[in-house]
Amino acid sequence: MKIVTVSREFGSGGRELGKRLADQLGFAYYDREIITAIAEKSQFHEDYVENVLNQGAFTHFPITYGHTFTYPSPLQQNATKILVAQEEIIRELGAKGKDCVIVGRSADVILAEYDPLNLFVYAEKEAKMRRCRQRAPEGEQLTDRELERRIKQVDNSRARYRQLLTSKRWGRKESYHLMINTTDLSIKEMTPWIAEFARHWFERDGK
Amino acid sequence: MKIVTVSREFGSGGRELGKRLADQLGFAYYDREIITAIAEKSQFHEDYVENVLNQGAFTHFPITYGHTFTYPSPLQQNATKILVAQEEIIRELGAKGKDCVIVGRSADVILAEYDPLNLFVYAEKEAKMRRCRQRAPEGEQLTDRELERRIKQVDNSRARYRQLLTSKRWGRKESYHLMINTTDLSIKEMTPWIAEFARHWFERDGK
Repeated sequence: MKIVTVSREFGSGGRELGKRLADQLGFAYYDREIITAIAEKSQFHEDYVENVLNQGAFTHFPITYGHTFTYPSPLQQNATKILVAQEEIIRELGAKGKDCVIVGRSADVILAEYDPLNLFVYAEKEAKMRRCRQRAPEGEQLTDRELERRIKQVDNSRARYRQLLTSKRWGRKESYHLMINTTDLSIKEMTPWIAEFARHWFERDGK
Repeated sequence: MKIVTVSREFGSGGRELGKRLADQLGFAYYDREIITAIAEKSQFHEDYVENVLNQGAFTHFPITYGHTFTYPSPLQQNATKILVAQEEIIRELGAKGKDCVIVGRSADVILAEYDPLNLFVYAEKEAKMRRCRQRAPEGEQLTDRELERRIKQVDNSRARYRQLLTSKRWGRKESYHLMINTTDLSIKEMTPWIAEFARHWFERDGK
C-alpha cells in the first residue's frame, strides 16, 4: 500500500496539491468522507466538525492540557472528542489498505507504521495571503492584519495538535521526505513533477 | 542569470547532487576554483584552505566572536581570513553573470540579490553515516560514535558560519525553495527530476 501525506501551511496550496496528486497517481483522496465519518462517530453535525477542525478551535487549548487540573471548557471537550474520532478514522483508512493521499490531520504521524511518503508544502507570507484572498468566500473582508493573524492561528493550531501525537515538530524537515516552497509557483503545473517524485520514492532502494 | 545553490547536511549527498545538477542543466559548477582563488587571496596553501573549510575549524569559534574582548587564536584568525576571502570570491562569481551551481559556502545568502534557487539536501542519521563510510579515504576507521560526532561538528560549523551572515537559520525551510530528504534515494536517479524542478522554477510566474 502506498500512502502520501500532505502537511501544509495555511494558504500554501497543499490541499489543491493533494487533490491533484491523487488524481495524477490514481490514488484515493480522502477528505469529505473523513468529516462525515467523524460526525457519525462523535455525534456532532458535519458543519460543526468541519468548523472545529478548520477554524483552529484547537488553538485555544492550553499546551499542558491533560497535565493540569484546569477543567476543559465545553468547546475544548468537543474539540477533544472530534480529534480523537479523527485519529480513529485515519487509522481505519490506513487499515483499508488502499493507495491514498491524505491532506493534514497529522496523518503522517498516525499512519507512520505504513511508511508513507510525507510532503510538506509552505510559502512566503505574502504568497499565502494572496492565495487566501483568491479563495475567500464572497463577502469575507479581512484586513491584512486580520488575515495574517488567522494564518498564524491555524498553523499554530496544526502544530499544537501534532505535539499531542509526537515529539517531531510540525514543519521541521526531520518529519518529511520533501518540502516544497510554493511561492510564485502554480500548483497545477507542479503536480506532475511531484507525482514523478512520488513514483520514484515508492520504488526506492530502501523499500 | 540562473544560480542554483545547494546547502546540505554532511553526508547527505549534496555535493554529488550539485555536480550532477550542473552537468544536467549545462551550468558551471564552481568548486575547486573557489579553493584556488581563496588560497591566492588569503595567501594560504590550497590544502590548508580546504582543510579549514572542510574540517569545520569554525566549530571552535565562540558564537559571540566579534562582540567579546576574547582575543582570537591564530587558527581562528586564519579561519576568519579564509572565510572573508571566500565571501569575496562568491560575490565575484555572482558578478560574472554565468549560470552556475554552487554547493555550500552560504552562497544562498551571499548571492541573495541574484534571486537564486536554493536547495537543501538532508538525510536521516543512519543514511548519512552509511554515505560517509562509503566515501571515506582508505584507512580512515572511525567508530560509529566518532563518525556521528564528526557529522554533527561539520553541520554545526556550517550553521554557525551562516549565523554570521543572516538571521535566517541554516536548515530551516524559510531559507529554501525545495528541501530533499535523500535517505534511501539514489542521487544519480534523482538528479533529472530536480533539474526538471529547477527549469520549472526559473520560469515561474513571479519572475
